[in-house]
Parts: sequence; structure tokens; C-alpha cells
Amino acid sequence: MALKTREDYIKSLKAMRPNVYKFGELIEDVTTHPATRRTVESHARGFDAAHDPKYAEDFTTVSTFTGQKIHRWNGMMESMEDVIANSKLKRWMYRFTGSCNGGLCVGWNGQNVMWNVTAMCDKENGTNYQERLKKWILGAQEKGLVVAGALTDAKGDRSMRPSQQPDPDSNLHIKEVREDGIVISGMKAMICGVAASNEIFLLPGGAYREEDKDYALACVVPKDVEGLTIVEARRASDSREFEEGFDIPETGITQAFLFFNDCFVPNERVFMCKEFKYSGKIIEFFTANYRACIGACVAGQGDVMIGTAALLARANGLAAGTFANKMVEMAVNNETTYGMGIGAMALGKKGPGGMWTSDSLLAHTNKVHVATLPYETKRICQDIGGGIAETGCFPSYKDFNDPNYGHLVQKALKAGVKFSAETRARAARLAEWLTLGAGVPGCMHGGGSPDGAKLVVRALTPVDQFAEYARKIAGITEDVPEPEKKK
Amino acid sequence: MALKTREDYIKSLKAMRPNVYKFGELIEDVTTHPATRRTVESHARGFDAAHDPKYAEDFTTVSTFTGQKIHRWNGMMESMEDVIANSKLKRWMYRFTGSCNGGLCVGWNGQNVMWNVTAMCDKENGTNYQERLKKWILGAQEKGLVVAGALTDAKGDRSMRPSQQPDPDSNLHIKEVREDGIVISGMKAMICGVAASNEIFLLPGGAYREEDKDYALACVVPKDVEGLTIVEARRASDSREFEEGFDIPETGITQAFLFFNDCFVPNERVFMCKEFKYSGKIIEFFTANYRACIGACVAGQGDVMIGTAALLARANGLAAGTFANKMVEMAVNNETTYGMGIGAMALGKKGPGGMWTSDSLLAHTNKVHVATLPYETKRICQDIGGGIAETGCFPSYKDFNDPNYGHLVQKALKAGVKFSAETRARAARLAEWLTLGAGVPGCMHGGGSPDGAKLVVRALTPVDQFAEYARKIAGITEDVPEPEKKK
Amino acid sequence: MALKTREDYIKSLKAMRPNVYKFGELIEDVTTHPATRRTVESHARGFDAAHDPKYAEDFTTVSTFTGQKIHRWNGMMESMEDVIANSKLKRWMYRFTGSCNGGLCVGWNGQNVMWNVTAMCDKENGTNYQERLKKWILGAQEKGLVVAGALTDAKGDRSMRPSQQPDPDSNLHIKEVREDGIVISGMKAMICGVAASNEIFLLPGGAYREEDKDYALACVVPKDVEGLTIVEARRASDSREFEEGFDIPETGITQAFLFFNDCFVPNERVFMCKEFKYSGKIIEFFTANYRACIGACVAGQGDVMIGTAALLARANGLAAGTFANKMVEMAVNNETTYGMGIGAMALGKKGPGGMWTSDSLLAHTNKVHVATLPYETKRICQDIGGGIAETGCFPSYKDFNDPNYGHLVQKALKAGVKFSAETRARAARLAEWLTLGAGVPGCMHGGGSPDGAKLVVRALTPVDQFAEYARKIAGITEDVPEPEKKK
Amino acid sequence: MALKTREDYIKSLKAMRPNVYKFGELIEDVTTHPATRRTVESHARGFDAAHDPKYAEDFTTVSTFTGQKIHRWNGMMESMEDVIANSKLKRWMYRFTGSCNGGLCVGWNGQNVMWNVTAMCDKENGTNYQERLKKWILGAQEKGLVVAGALTDAKGDRSMRPSQQPDPDSNLHIKEVREDGIVISGMKAMICGVAASNEIFLLPGGAYREEDKDYALACVVPKDVEGLTIVEARRASDSREFEEGFDIPETGITQAFLFFNDCFVPNERVFMCKEFKYSGKIIEFFTANYRACIGACVAGQGDVMIGTAALLARANGLAAGTFANKMVEMAVNNETTYGMGIGAMALGKKGPGGMWTSDSLLAHTNKVHVATLPYETKRICQDIGGGIAETGCFPSYKDFNDPNYGHLVQKALKAGVKFSAETRARAARLAEWLTLGAGVPGCMHGGGSPDGAKLVVRALTPVDQFAEYARKIAGITEDVPEPEKKK
Repeated sequence: MALKTREDYIKSLKAMRPNVYKFGELIEDVTTHPATRRTVESHARGFDAAHDPKYAEDFTTVSTFTGQKIHRWNGMMESMEDVIANSKLKRWMYRFTGSCNGGLCVGWNGQNVMWNVTAMCDKENGTNYQERLKKWILGAQEKGLVVAGALTDAKGDRSMRPSQQPDPDSNLHIKEVREDGIVISGMKAMICGVAASNEIFLLPGGAYREEDKDYALACVVPKDVEGLTIVEARRASDSREFEEGFDIPETGITQAFLFFNDCFVPNERVFMCKEFKYSGKIIEFFTANYRACIGACVAGQGDVMIGTAALLARANGLAAGTFANKMVEMAVNNETTYGMGIGAMALGKKGPGGMWTSDSLLAHTNKVHVATLPYETKRICQDIGGGIAETGCFPSYKDFNDPNYGHLVQKALKAGVKFSAETRARAARLAEWLTLGAGVPGCMHGGGSPDGAKLVVRALTPVDQFAEYARKIAGITEDVPEPEKKK
Repeated sequence: MALKTREDYIKSLKAMRPNVYKFGELIEDVTTHPATRRTVESHARGFDAAHDPKYAEDFTTVSTFTGQKIHRWNGMMESMEDVIANSKLKRWMYRFTGSCNGGLCVGWNGQNVMWNVTAMCDKENGTNYQERLKKWILGAQEKGLVVAGALTDAKGDRSMRPSQQPDPDSNLHIKEVREDGIVISGMKAMICGVAASNEIFLLPGGAYREEDKDYALACVVPKDVEGLTIVEARRASDSREFEEGFDIPETGITQAFLFFNDCFVPNERVFMCKEFKYSGKIIEFFTANYRACIGACVAGQGDVMIGTAALLARANGLAAGTFANKMVEMAVNNETTYGMGIGAMALGKKGPGGMWTSDSLLAHTNKVHVATLPYETKRICQDIGGGIAETGCFPSYKDFNDPNYGHLVQKALKAGVKFSAETRARAARLAEWLTLGAGVPGCMHGGGSPDGAKLVVRALTPVDQFAEYARKIAGITEDVPEPEKKK
Repeated sequence: MALKTREDYIKSLKAMRPNVYKFGELIEDVTTHPATRRTVESHARGFDAAHDPKYAEDFTTVSTFTGQKIHRWNGMMESMEDVIANSKLKRWMYRFTGSCNGGLCVGWNGQNVMWNVTAMCDKENGTNYQERLKKWILGAQEKGLVVAGALTDAKGDRSMRPSQQPDPDSNLHIKEVREDGIVISGMKAMICGVAASNEIFLLPGGAYREEDKDYALACVVPKDVEGLTIVEARRASDSREFEEGFDIPETGITQAFLFFNDCFVPNERVFMCKEFKYSGKIIEFFTANYRACIGACVAGQGDVMIGTAALLARANGLAAGTFANKMVEMAVNNETTYGMGIGAMALGKKGPGGMWTSDSLLAHTNKVHVATLPYETKRICQDIGGGIAETGCFPSYKDFNDPNYGHLVQKALKAGVKFSAETRARAARLAEWLTLGAGVPGCMHGGGSPDGAKLVVRALTPVDQFAEYARKIAGITEDVPEPEKKK
Repeated sequence: MALKTREDYIKSLKAMRPNVYKFGELIEDVTTHPATRRTVESHARGFDAAHDPKYAEDFTTVSTFTGQKIHRWNGMMESMEDVIANSKLKRWMYRFTGSCNGGLCVGWNGQNVMWNVTAMCDKENGTNYQERLKKWILGAQEKGLVVAGALTDAKGDRSMRPSQQPDPDSNLHIKEVREDGIVISGMKAMICGVAASNEIFLLPGGAYREEDKDYALACVVPKDVEGLTIVEARRASDSREFEEGFDIPETGITQAFLFFNDCFVPNERVFMCKEFKYSGKIIEFFTANYRACIGACVAGQGDVMIGTAALLARANGLAAGTFANKMVEMAVNNETTYGMGIGAMALGKKGPGGMWTSDSLLAHTNKVHVATLPYETKRICQDIGGGIAETGCFPSYKDFNDPNYGHLVQKALKAGVKFSAETRARAARLAEWLTLGAGVPGCMHGGGSPDGAKLVVRALTPVDQFAEYARKIAGITEDVPEPEKKK
């Protein structure tokens, strides 16, 4: 088929059963409701790009199954180049929207991770998960689906395993295995891109042991599956989405809490059912590519922050070039998270099912930077932007246009003869949105916490081997082992 | 008189003419209106502390004029100890409110700066400004006034001086000098604490030359002076202030844009009228103490962030002690801005009027840290707090209490057996408010930009003298001067 | 032929004319003289590795010309994998020796850069440089040559171009073009690995204009070419190389100043002769791969620093695991410079002659990290190592073995029952050597300064394009160009 | 008496019994021997300054006992101003010498600390230590003594307490108590300034319990006391001290290992003898002032690094002003450690004996910066200085003056017309010495490790109190205590 258009995409969303709530209200149409239309608009720009010759190379690819042209985010990632294209797509999307577009990201990664994992599982257990998965992927490619992905469970008490929780729903789990499918219940938290998605790829939130095997499940459900209630999280300044005017941009992302209550998932959509020993593999494969790629997300947003700082400098009456040193610092931050991710991809290798898997050590090192450098980039953006941008310190759109004193506000905001008060106001609001508004992506804990990444770095750093190198160079002849643990 | 109480203070605000606007609406009573009542509450806690034996030493002092006990923020700062008390009061106020309390800060600094400056001016010009100032201070002490301070003008085109601006109102200026006073017009921008203040201390926004002498003015006006229109700036998530519930705390600060239109200021309230050559001195004295003291503000907020991180760790089901290393990093940041400020005070000296003036080099060095370290403290607070705190990523208060699905939201938020879902939600909202909500103080540009501070550090670093020390240690015998500038 | 052995290599050096000086003395045999034998030993370990099955994959390759197995450092870099192998070899060499091995690095890069550049030059000018180069490479592969590379000239007055210098020898230049070759004179400074090399690849130190065309030269000379005087630079603690004992390890690197006085270079060794317009290309291609690869050098040394810190912790009587957090910080630094370099390679592409050229933006971003992160790694190594390691604060080997009081020194150095005083001393000396001794590589300015790298980052950051993204997201409709420069 | 002169001081050192060794040799005269004359020269500059009107205020004071003018470093520190003067003296000394001058520092601090501690001890135990101490101080003031101080013991196995060590000499201890004094044995390590000192103030290396009471001792001994053998530690590039020329400056510091073998200390020099419970107090008081003051040391060296960078920039042919931004970074680092120390002093208070004791929290916070910021300052110094300075990458003084090729070396080093090759070489050697040579002070572990300081910061940060502030602002009503430890 031809690639889907923005209109096709929006139509597909309109056709779904409403089950998303915010502020106590059921959202009848996510494509027009103020709380969700911005994230739909953001995702829609990915469809626009697929049809734009300038971006088509990164936004489309060819199905390895059918040879037909498909949306990049429905494709398989068989090579380093495929994962780099994922990275590039993410950087573009952030440049187009200033924000995360989870529906073009997590499900995509999920299908590739599960391709590797089902290969292992099928081989060892004689299951036929990969065949099911292939069928689903073919459909997704055909329909150009936007697929969110959900790993993080509500979790409950961090000191207990899923099966020990007083409330079994703290983690999503298989409640019943039927002949034709499974019944699932439980809660997933902070899942991004759901409102803008057609389907949701469900994956386990951790590496589970046998006693938690009910929690070892992988499947895909339509967003409007019966039994699923979705409640949107609130974000900084999200009430502005209900107002008129430029106090918030026309793009954005939302996160949601997902409440599954006896949802039935037919077998053809189930790719893991209690095979707990592969749940750790899912996490390992998932984070490797995910943490390699997110460097591109924050880099893309960093690009927009450089641009915003330049706009503000000019709107404030100065040349952007005045701040070249600071912009180089921002660029170094951006290229670092982007480049480290690419490095992880380059040192990756094909996984058991043939899908490319980035190098874990570099990917997790990158996560440490992703949780740190964007904070510095934001700080510099505020530094260049001036007080007006730092905390968005100026009156609202409503006051800007007040019939009685709006002219005063505008007079106060105009800095110099060249640019309008509105241009300066819009640039300042963008800086606010990016650095302490709804545009702030969860780069600290999104895709897992930096402390978890550091544990991986620690595990993959062969301290004893390094001590051997040092011992040889130092000419030390006796063994120097770690002291025995005291009992 | 006795010290003022919270009730006295609120009554004094209620008695004023309404002239504060937000979202297109005139605020009839700042003490009860959702947009301003939180900043009033915050300031009121300063009055509470004055009556609390635990804090009275820092929140009260004795008038050097009358010997009577007064609120600390109405006192003179004649010694290092007085300025240290200013610092301590700021740190307490942030601990009580999590936020800035500009009405207990800028006017206070202004009166002391002007004491030094009027001493110089009166001595050299035979004016009697200090006498006027003393009378006003006596009244302020008697009435326990809360006094905001306004330096930053709207400015207009940064490449032109005030008198060159196409719009003379870009900067506040003297429009007419009458026998009994002056008439002023123009705009001040981003002035904090105005809504919660009784009066506003107006000071020039820069060091002016003769051609800009109309802009060299210092005076105090009641907040509700005729001709003054005040428009509140909006802050991140400020719409939540109009909602019910815990999505925003009960304290806070606001900033305002001030539009003066032919305001009359009687002579007894005017402390500088066109004596432009002292305008630079005002900036110099003002920034020295101000930038020494603001280290305490961000330290106090940092204390609250340590506390918030501890609450969140526990509400997440972990011990705060798990994160001791990270909390030490936060504490080092806090104590650094606090301690550098104290260092600046200790190396200070009495100014020309006898008021203590902190050391400029250390004070401006501190400003560099104030514009940097709190960003790291916030990052660590989010790091410890987890995804729920990083961007406040969970449903709103309204959804938390929704009759249909609120129980699900609460179930998802409860982490472990010990603490309620609400406790975790409130702690997470506080983290959000402090790190990317309305609780973020403008520490980057508040009180001037770090780039300006670096210029002072540069000017006060005697590179040639340091080169001499190096030359002697290196045993270099020839002179090594800077190359002549090419023409 | 078979791969060369350590013995072959040493024999080849012994056969050369002595022309290296240090401390006023001519070094008759670089392989045994205390000032140079350590760098020869270091390079020799590269030959050992070529014969060790564990490392052979990285240390050998197949000649693209002859299909024969050759040393990796004589090969062509036609693909990303080839440049990654360069990176890996560097990291191994640092792990084996703790230090730089310039003779296995710069000449190698030079031959590949010149392959690209001669392709351009030959095509546009009908020259036959590439043919000459190929012949030389074939010989180098056959003989397993160690080839230093020299770019940095003595330079003289930084404010003048080469041809304007009062002393023409400030930069290496062509003094005469003869039918059978060229005569060159001038000075190259801070060239590493020369003492351990067979030949030296000479390249221009900058991008030259027509008036400087005499300085646009590329050629290779034997290290002992007639007319070349080599004076070794001194390094921190290099006098220890002349002492007995463990105060300095058995490996190391040296840098040299090269004084060319009418050296004749026959045409078959000349690959650029006054084609000044390609001199800039040489710099561009050279730095791209070089700055991508040096991340591996400092990573390898960082690995040794992790190992040294672990040894010291244990020799001090503690578990290395106590410092796991700090070692993770070190590892993050190491993997960052390594991974960014790999990222630059992965985004590279084939140059005009088919040799792989890393991405400039990422490579130069990496240089910024290479000039920063190793300093932090060193600091942490000293932090973990304790006072004894920080500045090598304990008596010398001579005192350690003094017949009268050596037993006291040993008694003082022994920390705990498990390890000998000598082990602790050796580990501490290694830490000293790595962090403030002769083992410190010039990672700040080696291969060019970070300020130069930042200029490239600046040039390759499309601020205006980024401003366009921001403008669209902000919904700004007017153009926001940079202000015109004032005249 | 009159203040002592440099000549008096040197004479006093010459009069002492030789007991200092280095490189297996007994140093007959520390004032002329190459290994020690530089540290004597450095300390001597403190005497010069006492006679220079420009510095006399900081280098002299008035004895609180006799009213006579004395050297500042023999005085009592009764007030904040006195401790600030200590700080200023340190910064000056570093500016004069580029290095540490331990003989004007640790003993001075020791006498003041012991004044406080003996006050406590005498009061509670009826001892008369303070009287003894006073007599000794009077003599030290009269004689203008230079007094090193020794706290750090050799320690042995870190996992055992002093009394548990297999070798009792691992820590200095009282071997015998006689009627007229005590006999001490054991080892002190890494003690700075000993070679240049007249006496050594001995203090315990930790807080001891009853079983370690033999190790709880405080006393002063002449440097040449019978039974004491001193072995100098080696430092980076210290062999250059035995060479002619400018490869090392004429100033410097040394550290020593002290071996006490049955040394008799008469009662009048003993200020603590087994009163173990005060050993912790000594550490507490000592570190508070010491860690407040060392900020001035590294600041002073940082000043010299700014100067060195300026010299190098100019000798390289550039204006120092080109690097103003980087110099501001250096200055911020310097003023931070200096200013934080001053802040600690300002928040200090009189100790039990009346001596001023700086605030522990700020002092230990400062130690964290002292262990970090100077590394950055050094990095920037190398950054500005260029490759020649980074690792001192140029030939030795001997080669610089070689009759055959010295002219070439000089030609290569001369950068531009203005300054001589020697000036550039000397400036580069100074940069090398400061950043990776013998001029590097042990700011990481000197005066204790940053990890120890962080423990103090942790202990003095009231996390629970901060959590209370947060709880109130968040409106949390339930208690949120730390979870109980699992058993």
C-alpha cells in the first residue's frame, strides 16, 4: 500500500473507542481535545515527513518481509544502519515538535526486541511466538500503525517482588490462560504517547523469576481494548493547553497511567506467556537500543534549544553570535548524547533473531549523559535567553491582549525596533516550555534510571582485568586480589 | 510599638486600593485571590517567625534610631552580623515557604544602599536626602512595612541608552520636577513580591550618564499609588493556583510588571533626583550585598529539596540513607552559595554612610555559583525522587479524587505499605513545583545576570599583578607586558 | 613475509645512524639508552601482540595491495571497521604500556590521509603522487615499519604566516626543488614516538595559502636521514629513567624537536610539493580520524588508572569495591571518549581516495572531551589512591633500599598484613607516573588544541537552521535574522 | 625582641644537628643542600615579608601575652580576624613561592588547637597542660620559630586500631612515662615543611579510644631531637633540583617521613599524655580551621597559575586578554576556596580556651572544593599555556644551552619577536612545575581526605529536619520516618 498520510492517521484515531480521561473527563476525540490534540499533532508530523523528499530516507524504509515501502517506525532493525536511522528519525522528530513522540518509538523497539527474544524462546521451547509476531508486524506495516510501548508497572512496594505485592494489580499480569488467548489485569504507569497511538506493545517491567511467571508477558493490544482505562498524567503548565493563545506551543507529548481490568488478548497477539526466563533478556535487549537512541532525542531537543536561544538573543536586541561559546557548549552536549549512542550502535551486533543490538556498555554510559547533559543545555538556554525566558517571567497571552492594558504589556515586551513584542513573547514561552514546562522530557528516568545504568556500567567494567594491566606496568609480582569479605 | 502580626499585615494589604491584574482581571483582594494569596501567605510566615522564640533573633532586631524592637527587614545593616542576619532570614524563609519572599528583601537592601549613597550625595551636593530617608525608615519600622524593590526596567532596545529609546517609558524616569515632588512615568519589569508588599522602593536600573539623568531616580511609593498599574507575570503551572487540591502548595511568589503613568511622588519620599553620577554607586552597593545574600535563598530552597528527596525516597519505599552520597552533593551546593556569601560579608566594610557593604569580588563570584549550582541540586532532587517526581508524571488531584477511577489512581500511586498515596503524590508535586514549577526562583538572572557578575570578577582579578608573581617565581628578568592593540 | 618480531624491530633501530640527543648527549643506541629504551620497549609490545592469538585480530590485517598479512599499523583504512580497529589497537597499547605509542599511530594516519589527498591532487593536477605513495606503503608493509608523524612546526610568531616569519626555519619548508627530489629545512616540535620509529611522515602544520606554498609539503624520511638532528624533550620526572629501581616503570613515550638542515628527500618519497590548496584538506582529514581515535588512547590509560586505583585500594588495606561509585565515574569518562570516537567513525564516509574519514563534528566534539575528562579520571585515581599516590609522597627507591634506614621506610609503607611494602610503593609510583609524571599524555594539546576543535564544532553547528526549527514550533511568523554588523 | 630576619632563620637551621636524609645521603646543611634549600628559601620569604611594610600587617601581630610584635605564625588566633590573617598569609606565601610552606602553618594551628583542648582537659582533669603550652609559646614567639606539625601516622593496616597493629610503631606512641617526661616511638608520614622547620608539633592522627590511649599524645620536639630520623619523600621531577638551570624554580616544599626511636620529650613540652578522650577534639578543632584556611593556599597558587597563563599567552605571541573567559573561570575557582574558608571563619566561634574555631560544616564543604577545583584550574592553565606547557614538552636547560645544538633549541622556542626563548621556556617550566611537577601541593589528601570531609558534611546535614520543612510545605500530614533497618 501507499504510505499513510496525516489524515489517514487522524482518521484512524477518531475511529477508536474513547477510553482516555483527564481532569475527570472522558476525552471523546483525542485528535481535537485540548489535552491530547498536541501530541496527536506531533505524531502527525512524522507522517508529513514520510511524504517529504527531504526526510523520506529517514522516515520510510522497505519491509524486509514484503519489499514494500513502509513507515520507518514499523520496520525491522537488522543492521547498524537501521538503528542509526531510528536515531536520526528521533532527532528530526524533536526538531519538528520540540518534544517526545513515544508512539513512534517504544512499540517499534518492542517489536524488534521481541523478534530476538521469540527466536530464542521458540528455539528452546518449540513455541511459535515469532510466527505470531511476524503476522502482527505485517499488519502494522500494512496499516502504518502508531504503537506505544509499556514496560513500567505501578510496582507497589519496591522491596517486594510482583508476586509478593499485597495488590496483584501493582504489576500487569496474566490472570487467566484460555485456549484462544489470555486475560490480563494490572497497572502500567507513566506510559508516553498512548493518547496518540493505535496500539500498545506490553512488555514486562523487570527480569522475573519463576514465582513471578504470571508477570512475564508480552503482547500487543489496541489502545481501545475492552477493559482498559487510561488516565493522563498532568505535566507542568498543562492547564495552558485549555487556554487560547501562545502560552504553550501546538505540539507536545502526554504520558498516561493504564488500568487493565480483565482484558482479553487473543493468542495471535501474545508473544510471551509466562516464559519468565526470557523477561530479563527483554530488558537487556530493550535498554541497549533504547538507551543508544534516546541520545538523539535529547540532542534534537538541544538543537531546538540552541535555536530558541538564538531567537531570544535576537529578540532581546543582541546578535546570537555574542553567545557562540555558550552555544558550542550546548552543541557539545547534544553531539555527545547523539554520538555516544551511534558509538553504541557501531559496536553492536546481531541478536539471536538477527535484529541489531547496540553495545550495552556504551548504551548505558550514554544513559548517564542523557540524565545529566540536557540539564546543562537547559541552563545555558536560560542563561542566554535572559530573565524573561528563565521562568517565563512576563504576563500571559490574555494580559498581552487585554483591551485595557494589553498595549502596555506589549510595549514592555518589545525590545528594540526590529522584532515585534509577540515574537519575543513566543520565543520566551518556548524557552520556558522547553526548560521548565510541558516540553521537558523525562530524560532522567525515562527508559529507566541512571542509577540502573551505572549498575550496568559497573558490571561491565572488568576492574580485575584492569588491575592486571596496572600490575604488569608497575612490575608488581605478587597477586593483589580483593580482600575476602568479613563474615 | 509591638511587632506586627500576620493579621496586622494582612489587614494592611486589604486596606489598599486594588491595582494588580492577572489574566485580564483586577484582583480586588490580594490576600484572598488565588493568584496572589500564596505569596501573601509566604510573606506572612515572616511575621509568624518574628513572634516565635525559636526564630525571633533572626527575624527581629532593634532600631538603631529608636532602640525599639522592629522587624529585621526594616532595620539598618551596620555590621557584618547584620548582613549575616539578612542571609539567615532568607534561608529560614525559603525553608518555611520553599520560595522567594521579595517583599522582605529588596526594599530592605534598597534602604541601606541609599543610606550609603545619600551620605555621599548629601556631602558633595548639600542635598538632604538622608534626612528624608531616615524619616521614611522610621515610619517603615513603626509600621512594619513589607517593601518590594524595583530596579529592572523594561529597557527596550538593548543597544541604546535610556534617553535614546524611541519610547521614553522603556525606562522609569522623572517626567517633571515640581516644588513638592516629582512626577514619574515608565515601566519596571519582573519585580518580585509586589503583590504582597505595602510599598515599592524604586531604584535606577543602571549606571547612567548625564544625558540620562532623568532616569537617575530613587524613591519609595505605596503599592497603590495613583497612576500605577500592576500586571502579574505568569509562572510555570500557575493555573493550578485556581484549582482545588494539592497540585500546587499553599506558598509561593509572584513577579509583576509595573506601569507608571504620571505618578506623583512627594519630596519626602524622593532620595535621588537626577544626581546621575551616583546611579552607578547604587548598582555597586546593591549588588554587593544582594549577591552575597542570595546564596542563602538558594541554599534554603536546596535544604527543602534535600528534605523533599528524603520524603520521596521514603514514600517510594526506600530509605533516604540510600542516597546519602547524593544528598551530600546537594548539601555541598547549598553550603557553597551560603558560605561564599558569608565570606563576602566577612571581607566587606562599612560604606560611606556607615552601612556594611560586602566584598564585591566574592559576592559576584557567588552569583556565578547561584546561577549554576541550584540547577545541579534540582537535577539530583529529580534523580532521587524517581520518574514520578521528575516531571510530576502522574494524574492530577482531580483525577486522584475522581469518583469513577480515582481509586485506581490512588492504587497506582501507593508504593508500599507504610505511606498513603496522597503522601507520595504531595511529595512528588512538591518536587515538581521546586524543580520545574512555580517554585523555581529566577536564580540565573534574578538580581542580575551571571555574565555581568563575570565581568566584575574579571575587572577585580589583577592579572598583571598575578603575572608579576609568576614572573618572579619563574626567574624571568625581562618585562612581559600585554601586546599593544593593533590599530 | 612473516610479521616482524620484537627482535626484528629492535635490530632495525640498532642499525640506524645515531642522531638523537638528550641532556647534551648523543644517544648511540636508542634501544638501550635510559632516555629512550622505555619508548622502544613500549612500541615493541605492539609486535608482541601481533604474534599473540588473543590480540592478533586487532594487531594484524591483510594488505589490500598484496593480500599478505601485515601489521595493522601499516594497513589501509578503507572502512569503518578498519578505523575501529585503529581505535582498539590504541586502547590495547595503552593497556599494555600505560602510555602513548606515537610510532604506531601518526605515520599510519598520515599514509591514509595522503591516500585521499593524493587522489584529489592527482586527479586535478595530473600528478602521480598516489603511485609514489603506494610504492612507499608497499615497502613499509613489507618491512613492518614503525613510522612517526610530524605536523606541528616550531611556528615562531603566531601572528604571522610561515612565509612572513623572520626565521624561515620556524616552519618546515621546501628550500629547493631538484629533478630527483626536494631539499627541506626547518623545525618540527613536540613530535612523539620519533626515537622508537624507523621513519617519519612529514605533513604540513596548517592550511596554507599561495604565498606559503613552500611550506606545503608531504613526504616520508628515514629517522636517520642526513641533515636531521633530533633533540628529545624532557618530561616530568624523566631523570628517574637514569636511576635504578621502581620509581618509574619500564615503559613510556618520548617527544622530540626535529631540526632539518638541507635534508634531501628523493621524489619517490614526496607526496605533496607546493600544492598548497590541499594542505587544508590534509588537516581536515587528519584531524577527523585522529580525534576520533585518540578517545581510545585516553580510555586505555583510564582503564589502567582504574586498575591502579584498585591495586592501591587493596595495597592500602581496603577493598576496591569500596570505591565502586568512583570507578564507575572513571569508566564513564573512559567509555565516553572511546564511544564518541566510535560514533564519529560510524557516521564517517569514504574520502576521495576511498579511505574512511570519520565525521568531523563528532570527532571534534570528542577532542573537547579528550581535553577534559582524563583530568577528572586522574583526579579520581588520586582520590582513591590516597596521599601516598597523590603526589607520590614517599621516599625514593634508593631510600627504600638504604642499608641504614631502608627497613624503616619499608615498615612505614607496608599497610596491613597482606601485601608487601614494595607492592604498595610500586602501585603508588604508577599512580604518580600516570597522573603527574612522565606517563601523562598530552591529551589537551596533542593532535591540536580543544579551542581549535571548538571552532570546528561552532562552524558545523547550523544555528540558523536550529533557529528555524524553534521559530516553527513557537509559531513565530516574522523572520528573525542576525542583526547586521555595525560598521 | 625584634622580628627575626631571613638570616637569623637560616642561621638557626644551620645550627641544628643533621638528621634529614634523601637519596641515601645525610643532608649536612638543609639551607644549602639541593634537596632542601628551595623549601628553606620559600619559608625565608615569610621573614622577608614580615619586614616589608606592604605585607607587615598580615605577617606580624602582637603577642597577646607580652604585647610585643611577633611573627604572625607564632601568634594566638582569638578572633575571626586572626584566622582571616592566617588565610591571607597563606595566600601571600603561595604568591611569593608558588608552593606550600608547612612550617608556617601546621605548628601554628597546633598551638591554637591545643590551647582550646588543654583548657578543656585541665578543667576536667586538673592537669596543667595549658601552662606548659603557654611557656612553650612564649619561647616560640621570642625565637620566631618555624614549627612543622605532624598528625598523619604511617598507620599500617587500615582495618585495625593503633593498639591492634602487629607493629606498634605504625603509629606514634608513648612508650614510657617518666617523671620528667615521656619516651615516644613510631612513625609519622608525609609531613610537610619539616626540613625548613626548627621544631615539630606532634599531634594524634585520629580520635582514639581507651585501648589506644598510648597513642593519645601531643607535644613539641626540636627537629633534631635525639632518636629522630627524617627521610624526605621524593616529588615529581625532584631530581631536577640537583641540576643546574631553570628546569625547576628556586622555591618549593618537601615532605618527610619521621621515624621516632625512643625519643625523650621533657614534661614542659608535653601537652597531652594519654588523655585519649580529647584526641577527637584535637582532630575536630584542627580540621575546622585548617580546612577553612587551605582554601587560601590553593587560591594563592591559583593566582600564580593565572599569572603563569598570562605570561605564557604573551610569550606564545598572544594577548592574555584573549583568554579572559578562561581566566575568569580560574579566578572563580580561586575565590571560591578562599571565600568559602572566610565564610567558615565568619560563622566560627571561640573554642573552650578562647581560640577561634571555624564552622565545621563550611570548612569541610570547603575541603571538598579544595580537592576538586584546583584540578580544573590546572587544566585551564595548561589549556591556555599550549602544548609546550601542558607537559613541559621541550628540551632541558642543558639542551637549551648545548654548545652544538642549543642555538637550534632556542630558535625553536622563540615565538615571536618580543620575548626571548628563555622567557618562554621559564614560563613553560613554571606551568609544568605547578600542574604536574614538584609544585603540585597535595590538595586532595593534604589535611585529610575529601571523603572524610564528606562524612562530616553528611553528619552535619539535618536531613530529617529538612524533610520536616518539605513536609510542611507539601501539606503532608502523616509522619514520614526512615524505614526501620532490616535485621
